[in-house]
Amino acid sequence: MDTGSVTLPTALDVDAAATRLAGVAIRTPLISSPMLDERLGARVFLKAETMQRMGAFKFRGAYNKISSIPRDRWPSGVVAFSSGNHAQGVAAAAKLLGMPAVIVMPSDAPRPKRERTAALGAEVILYDREKEDREAIARRIAGERGAVLVPPYDDPLIIAGQGTLGREIIEDLAKAGLKPDVVVIGASGGGLAAGTALAIKAAAPQADIFTAEPEGFDDTARSFRSGKRESNARMSGTICDALMSQHPGEMTFAINSRLIGKGVSASDEEVARAVGFAFRELKLVVEPGGAIGLAALLAGKVDVKGKVAVAILSGGNVDPDLFYKLIAA
Amino acid sequence: MDTGSVTLPTALDVDAAATRLAGVAIRTPLISSPMLDERLGARVFLKAETMQRMGAFKFRGAYNKISSIPRDRWPSGVVAFSSGNHAQGVAAAAKLLGMPAVIVMPSDAPRPKRERTAALGAEVILYDREKEDREAIARRIAGERGAVLVPPYDDPLIIAGQGTLGREIIEDLAKAGLKPDVVVIGASGGGLAAGTALAIKAAAPQADIFTAEPEGFDDTARSFRSGKRESNARMSGTICDALMSQHPGEMTFAINSRLIGKGVSASDEEVARAVGFAFRELKLVVEPGGAIGLAALLAGKVDVKGKVAVAILSGGNVDPDLFYKLIAA
Repeated sequence: MDTGSVTLPTALDVDAAATRLAGVAIRTPLISSPMLDERLGARVFLKAETMQRMGAFKFRGAYNKISSIPRDRWPSGVVAFSSGNHAQGVAAAAKLLGMPAVIVMPSDAPRPKRERTAALGAEVILYDREKEDREAIARRIAGERGAVLVPPYDDPLIIAGQGTLGREIIEDLAKAGLKPDVVVIGASGGGLAAGTALAIKAAAPQADIFTAEPEGFDDTARSFRSGKRESNARMSGTICDALMSQHPGEMTFAINSRLIGKGVSASDEEVARAVGFAFRELKLVVEPGGAIGLAALLAGKVDVKGKVAVAILSGGNVDPDLFYKLIAA
Repeated sequence: MDTGSVTLPTALDVDAAATRLAGVAIRTPLISSPMLDERLGARVFLKAETMQRMGAFKFRGAYNKISSIPRDRWPSGVVAFSSGNHAQGVAAAAKLLGMPAVIVMPSDAPRPKRERTAALGAEVILYDREKEDREAIARRIAGERGAVLVPPYDDPLIIAGQGTLGREIIEDLAKAGLKPDVVVIGASGGGLAAGTALAIKAAAPQADIFTAEPEGFDDTARSFRSGKRESNARMSGTICDALMSQHPGEMTFAINSRLIGKGVSASDEEVARAVGFAFRELKLVVEPGGAIGLAALLAGKVDVKGKVAVAILSGGNVDPDLFYKLIAA
């Protein structure tokens, strides 16, 4: 699909990504809970992407992108800028493929995310989230070293890689004779939403898809309403550290405004309740940003009564201290 | 199979239980993790029974037992004694079937377990673990009310119900073209071990099965060695509150000494490390007793090098305070 300046990925690119990721990415389980079904009066399925390599969906897009780099460029490696989960995904994919990786990361990123990225053999370069431009730093390093920049979302291969998760949802529901009526996907830059929407809509065109964002960081929902890419006023101030992109991506918005077009938001308190629910009832560790879709469902932000509803638990990388605060509340 | 005084369940009883539980119990996922495989040099699979109804395997046996009670006795209900997970399993099964339930529970059982049992509509009667005999209390209530006693492990239907979990392990491994070489099962009274061993050995006679117990509460391992049922010296003093039965059951020992015969143990520290590993690497909430098999694997108590190894994460009902202590260590 061509929209002038950029070539957008399609469901066929998601299929190709699924082939590349087979046997490499974890096929994470699609979980249901009688208690959740009863509570919401729906058939609810949660894609436990928390169990993906490095604890978040980001590995899918990173591996799809990095494994597609021409072989002669592998020795120069890759560079990425990320608030955390993308960093780990890129570092893990590069390590699996034997390539060097540089990660430009905000100095306030959760400690386990920084440590894990370094433990994967990546070189970590910290920057000040409020003062410096991470993308500019990453581009400079890419230029100096001849490394390939692995963007967090606005890239056809990244989007297609994340979309493999949507493909698995469709396949697993089909085994139970079901199709999704409602799908709720957390959105920051919008790569997960775009890829997943491509896969879901190709197989279930009638599905109603929603993005979910933290209150005050609902750039995607506002962009849907205005028809152009809106920005967030702030770059900090939500417990959902994984969901603080400045604005929707260009490619991701082109896809999401066409296939999704509807966004909901949840407060930090609603997200905390969802993290606590996952701990108590599902025995799953979900990071705040990863629980935004479940939070939206539990808070009744989307009408799912009598429907087959899917939310994605997109990541589980959370500090023990923050996790305790959320589950003990 | 008849051993004189008692008729022991067989793999056929597990098959019958699977039919009763179909669509009622959750078919919990069998999870693998590249990080765990790499660390142990094995293909490791974890049965995430933490995601079962009420957060533990106990629902399986309880539902199999209670749904088999003759209809005319349903109005008098059921009674059970339990340190927690069995209580919730019985209460949930009775509620689903519309039967009253009385649960005799130690006064020091974790708060969430007490609260959940009551929330399921069961009548909770507390006793002092050090001074009173829970079994005698339960039998008295059963006699007074005409209720059916649902024992925690020493019952053919309970054992067969727990065994459905082993059947699912075999089925899920078969889908990947695998059979288990090593299976590690936590043991308290031994019902989960017995049922699972029946199912596993019927399909994979070459599998090496081990029980896992807390250090100092290794009555099953000692019983294997001496050839008769040994008791634990203490009834408290491990973080594995779910694994403190006094001695192996009569039926369960008859089965386990024949099909298992080998036991390992893990220290509280090793269990804590396993709970932390599950939090960080698997994003799963596992209670201490539920992590004993994983603890044994991580601590190298069982040789799994190059093998297909399975451990059961048998429960996830843990207080936030204790959980934090374990994951922050």
